Amino acid sequence: MFLSNLIDGRVIAEQLHGETSQRIASLSQRGLQVGLAFVRVGEDPASQVYVGMKEKTAERLGVRSVTHVLPEQVSQSELLELIARLNADPLVHGILVQAPIPRHIDSAQIYSAVCPKKDVDGFHPINIGKVLLGDPSGFLPCTPAGVHELLIRSGVPVAGADVVVLGRGNIVGKPMAAILMQKSPHADATVTLCHSRSRHVAEHCRRADIIIAAMGVPLFVKAEMVREGSVVIDVGVNRIKDSSTKTGTRLVGDVDFVNIQPKALKITPNPGGVGPMTIAMLMRNTVTAAENFSK
Amino acid sequence: MFLSNLIDGRVIAEQLHGETSQRIASLSQRGLQVGLAFVRVGEDPASQVYVGMKEKTAERLGVRSVTHVLPEQVSQSELLELIARLNADPLVHGILVQAPIPRHIDSAQIYSAVCPKKDVDGFHPINIGKVLLGDPSGFLPCTPAGVHELLIRSGVPVAGADVVVLGRGNIVGKPMAAILMQKSPHADATVTLCHSRSRHVAEHCRRADIIIAAMGVPLFVKAEMVREGSVVIDVGVNRIKDSSTKTGTRLVGDVDFVNIQPKALKITPNPGGVGPMTIAMLMRNTVTAAENFSK
Repeated sequence: MFLSNLIDGRVIAEQLHGETSQRIASLSQRGLQVGLAFVRVGEDPASQVYVGMKEKTAERLGVRSVTHVLPEQVSQSELLELIARLNADPLVHGILVQAPIPRHIDSAQIYSAVCPKKDVDGFHPINIGKVLLGDPSGFLPCTPAGVHELLIRSGVPVAGADVVVLGRGNIVGKPMAAILMQKSPHADATVTLCHSRSRHVAEHCRRADIIIAAMGVPLFVKAEMVREGSVVIDVGVNRIKDSSTKTGTRLVGDVDFVNIQPKALKITPNPGGVGPMTIAMLMRNTVTAAENFSK
Repeated sequence: MFLSNLIDGRVIAEQLHGETSQRIASLSQRGLQVGLAFVRVGEDPASQVYVGMKEKTAERLGVRSVTHVLPEQVSQSELLELIARLNADPLVHGILVQAPIPRHIDSAQIYSAVCPKKDVDGFHPINIGKVLLGDPSGFLPCTPAGVHELLIRSGVPVAGADVVVLGRGNIVGKPMAAILMQKSPHADATVTLCHSRSRHVAEHCRRADIIIAAMGVPLFVKAEMVREGSVVIDVGVNRIKDSSTKTGTRLVGDVDFVNIQPKALKITPNPGGVGPMTIAMLMRNTVTAAENFSK
């Protein structure tokens, strides 16, 4: 029981990578090499790690990736110029601007500048709009799309389920809610979105069939907030102090995994749950962009 | 009590019209006449009525409107051509394609063809995306924006409230949920979106502070689904059979008003609740489009 209720994101991500690499190979046979451009601004250590992992996965799957590193002090217009160049480059099918972008840059303008057809991160307003409208012609944002795939491929019944999404960020919470509320046999959930101003978060969680935690609050979801037999997905990545480690910090999720695992029907470990899925969805979006380009 | 708990959409819409007509007058003093184009396809009687009401309101507020009526059999490309012409016309600041569009037309393509800056209906995916992202640079869809204004101007506390939205249409339900979940002193609600596949609709409604019914199911919300002291907003417009009337039909909402009014803290009549607000928000969006154009 204690092992069997784990939703293994690494295994499911590998399934997806297998499907994606077949599509990449098929394009390659037709003479098209899938191309992905990363844009990283400044020397944020987490950004370096994330882009590094994405580069490695791209290479492993046969995607040609190029990383553009810009200095922390880059101007809005310089960044926009680079994006315009990548938008026009026929060898680039997907563009990813790694968050966080420095504060002096208007990030909404940057995400809006990426050509929607190359917006494999799914951050462009037109792609976000298509998520809410249920229009399948756009790109889904990678993390919520990855959570959705995790649920589907773990056999969690989503249709008709009461889902509580914790957190209303533009990258996870809000698009997550939008994906699960759509009219579709794989969605059709009744979604409640809770956030920092919500009054009855614990009550909402206790009646949920599925809880998706993306608040960015360390160990926010406690055992007493979860009813026996629910499914718990932890999207959180929070760095907290821990004097027992070499660095003096460690990463924890939004979910008190240790105390919740015994009562959950299914639960994601963290790390090893949602994280690998984000990259898998990025690669899937990228090959879709290349396929659309080749049509 | 029986009269005082009514949310009078006509009165609130008139307040809004007053504000909008001042902005129109101010543009007019600077030599800009606000222009609005209506596109109506076929001879659907409801469309004729709706466009007629919008034309009259436009005239009353000093907006120059032109209505383009196309035959039921119009082709996709002819309709797209008209929209392209209106997009390019500097005298037209807002474009409204009246729903319903005949079934042989791909309505998503039509709504996407309207220039986002002239999309005063707020149906373009980029504007819908901005709603979900909380980006104020877009246009809000008129009916959910109108419901939001009704709540604010009736003094209903939305922040922190548990709101249940019934219905997940692209025109009302989904953007309604998106508007109310935003981080903002006027929003900040905890929103649950219920639909035809939801399992515990009555339970969700009974715990709600605010119920917004936009299912399109006649008298769906019954008194036993509403707790004493909640706020009930009826967006529904359903034509049902009634042999006692001259036409053999009559219009009813999604809410059993007669039995719910005595227990509601506040409730919209129907007609006279949400309907007038939709037109008020259309006019407000149109003057905003003209102001943006003049900048």
